Amino acid sequence: MECYLDNSATTKPCKQAVEAATKAMTEVFGNPSSLHAHGFAALQLLESARNTLAKPLKAESSEIYFTPCGTVSNNTAIFGAAKLLKHKGNKIVTTAMEHPSVLKCMERLSEEGFEIVYLEPDENGQISLNALEQAVDEKTILVSMMAVNNEVGSILPFDKAKAIIEKKHAPALLHVDAVQAFLKLPIVPKKCGIDLLSASAHKVHGLKGSGVLYVRKGLNIRPYLVGGGQENDMCSGTQAMPNIAAFAAAVEAFGNTKQNAFKVAKIKNVLLEKLQGAKGIEINSPENALPYILNLSVAEVPSQVSVNFLSMHGVSVSAGSACSKGHRSAVLEAMGLSPERIDTALRISFSHETTEEEALYCAEMLLKETEELRKKG
Amino acid sequence: MECYLDNSATTKPCKQAVEAATKAMTEVFGNPSSLHAHGFAALQLLESARNTLAKPLKAESSEIYFTPCGTVSNNTAIFGAAKLLKHKGNKIVTTAMEHPSVLKCMERLSEEGFEIVYLEPDENGQISLNALEQAVDEKTILVSMMAVNNEVGSILPFDKAKAIIEKKHAPALLHVDAVQAFLKLPIVPKKCGIDLLSASAHKVHGLKGSGVLYVRKGLNIRPYLVGGGQENDMCSGTQAMPNIAAFAAAVEAFGNTKQNAFKVAKIKNVLLEKLQGAKGIEINSPENALPYILNLSVAEVPSQVSVNFLSMHGVSVSAGSACSKGHRSAVLEAMGLSPERIDTALRISFSHETTEEEALYCAEMLLKETEELRKKG
Repeated sequence: MECYLDNSATTKPCKQAVEAATKAMTEVFGNPSSLHAHGFAALQLLESARNTLAKPLKAESSEIYFTPCGTVSNNTAIFGAAKLLKHKGNKIVTTAMEHPSVLKCMERLSEEGFEIVYLEPDENGQISLNALEQAVDEKTILVSMMAVNNEVGSILPFDKAKAIIEKKHAPALLHVDAVQAFLKLPIVPKKCGIDLLSASAHKVHGLKGSGVLYVRKGLNIRPYLVGGGQENDMCSGTQAMPNIAAFAAAVEAFGNTKQNAFKVAKIKNVLLEKLQGAKGIEINSPENALPYILNLSVAEVPSQVSVNFLSMHGVSVSAGSACSKGHRSAVLEAMGLSPERIDTALRISFSHETTEEEALYCAEMLLKETEELRKKG
Repeated sequence: MECYLDNSATTKPCKQAVEAATKAMTEVFGNPSSLHAHGFAALQLLESARNTLAKPLKAESSEIYFTPCGTVSNNTAIFGAAKLLKHKGNKIVTTAMEHPSVLKCMERLSEEGFEIVYLEPDENGQISLNALEQAVDEKTILVSMMAVNNEVGSILPFDKAKAIIEKKHAPALLHVDAVQAFLKLPIVPKKCGIDLLSASAHKVHGLKGSGVLYVRKGLNIRPYLVGGGQENDMCSGTQAMPNIAAFAAAVEAFGNTKQNAFKVAKIKNVLLEKLQGAKGIEINSPENALPYILNLSVAEVPSQVSVNFLSMHGVSVSAGSACSKGHRSAVLEAMGLSPERIDTALRISFSHETTEEEALYCAEMLLKETEELRKKG
């Protein structure tokens, strides 16, 4: 049986996304900046995709900027915000469990003289609002907090951060890396005061090679990629039209956020029930995590050995995030897990397309693994 | 008749590129950083594409880095080189006819305190080696020169720049924006001392959303996009696999550089012969330009009026570059053309797929335009 459960690394593009990309490769192949019929057709496709992307965020389409990927969204948001507000303060508050495309920006800003405060997660992968409140002060110009952690699925209190920023009279902008959360958790930037939000197509059955950055209307951060002035100068470079068309198609095909999450939670429970009572398997994700991500440890079996064993049996999962290839998980470390548990951790990540049969099969292979690979005695 | 002659803005993806992208969307959809079967298949596709891209440049595959687009290649090369060598000097030499994705980097570096020298083209769109020699000194850390200008097609003396850098004992790296030249002009970085070279897929019948940056082995410029460390840390962000697979397929399908250029020159001459003696049409491209690009002016007819007239008759051309949408051409200005000639300029850009019939039809429509649109008297 073939069973792809690494949907937080990347998803399989849906039929609608493939069709939309094909159309943009073969029929509407113009450059949207060109001022002739082929250009106008491409521009129409681009603006229609922008409208589609704005809907789930209840944003205006002019607040949606297409980028090449989540990394460019995060780099643009963070460096852009820092440049814009550096005259107001030099403190940035983030968490120790962000994606490398956020953490690496922080490292660079630290080199430039910014003071970076990294909030540590507790053992449930949760960030405390008290800690946030203590960290934010009148010199804080940016709070960057992911919506859902990519390794354990914990949901961070991003929706309560703006109230704290205001309470502490900080000039800070709020950036939310929603790459794992987009369409999987209802997020309305205007409702919770998000100024900047990043999302990516290939986590929601679109293509690799497309992301968006939401920038609140009226906020003029400095662009990071410079050139021809595409995307209203926010992100230069000819737009990746097939990927953008596919992104919009994937968003339209994704279905209802709550219904999907309910379905995925059911699938996750099927897997968990099958594993119940199994010796040596410990769950690392908190109970109230987003159901799409389930992190667990298989005692005594190093992560990559598990990944290989499961892959040989047709089950694709990962040892932590795809982007941290080969490194010990900083997120699990920050959660205070033992080195043994970290080194044997697996991330199983679902899609709303995942079936109960797949979840059951994955559980069976995990049980088989504990029998065959754990040391005797 | 339908006649697409805006190939310097973007090309129609070839059949092979579409097929390769489709395969990467439907079959090999894994994340190349994932350590399971789907990841390995994607990694294999990625590395095979890298080998393919290395060939026309006679480079090692480890010198080829995939980027989201030519703009990211240029931004990465220029900012990366400047950061690497700023301790050796603060002078950068470039030309006044570069693409905005180079010029805008220069503006930022100028704000940071670098001295930028812009070499002006002569009336043939040519950069003088004497002027380059005068500009480069011991404090020059970067020379950035495009291989082929995107508006008029002139071929710049990029292949002689390194000798001057060495003669002047400058620590400068040589960056070549080869977005318009890649596969259309033979360029071997090692033969002419190029340290950094940018190219883009969608100018050679690949997809929008994919570029490459060649970085000479042993040269460790600082990456611009930071995050998960993809592309050996040179360009973070999950690789746009469908676009990369398509890029490689397009390169393989492109055919022989010299034979294609010969064919395109013939097509261009068919068009020029038909226009010969026509009143009010003046050629702006130099005779020895790359044949893929032909810039001309239609007296008394503003560029956009021409573009619209031709588009209505099925012919797609542009008024300058797609990236300078709406602005007066800085390149034609730098070449010293009169405002009247600049404001009536058109760029016709060919592909090796362009037919004689298309070239003839385009010429006929241009003649029709001069008859119908030029003021009487």
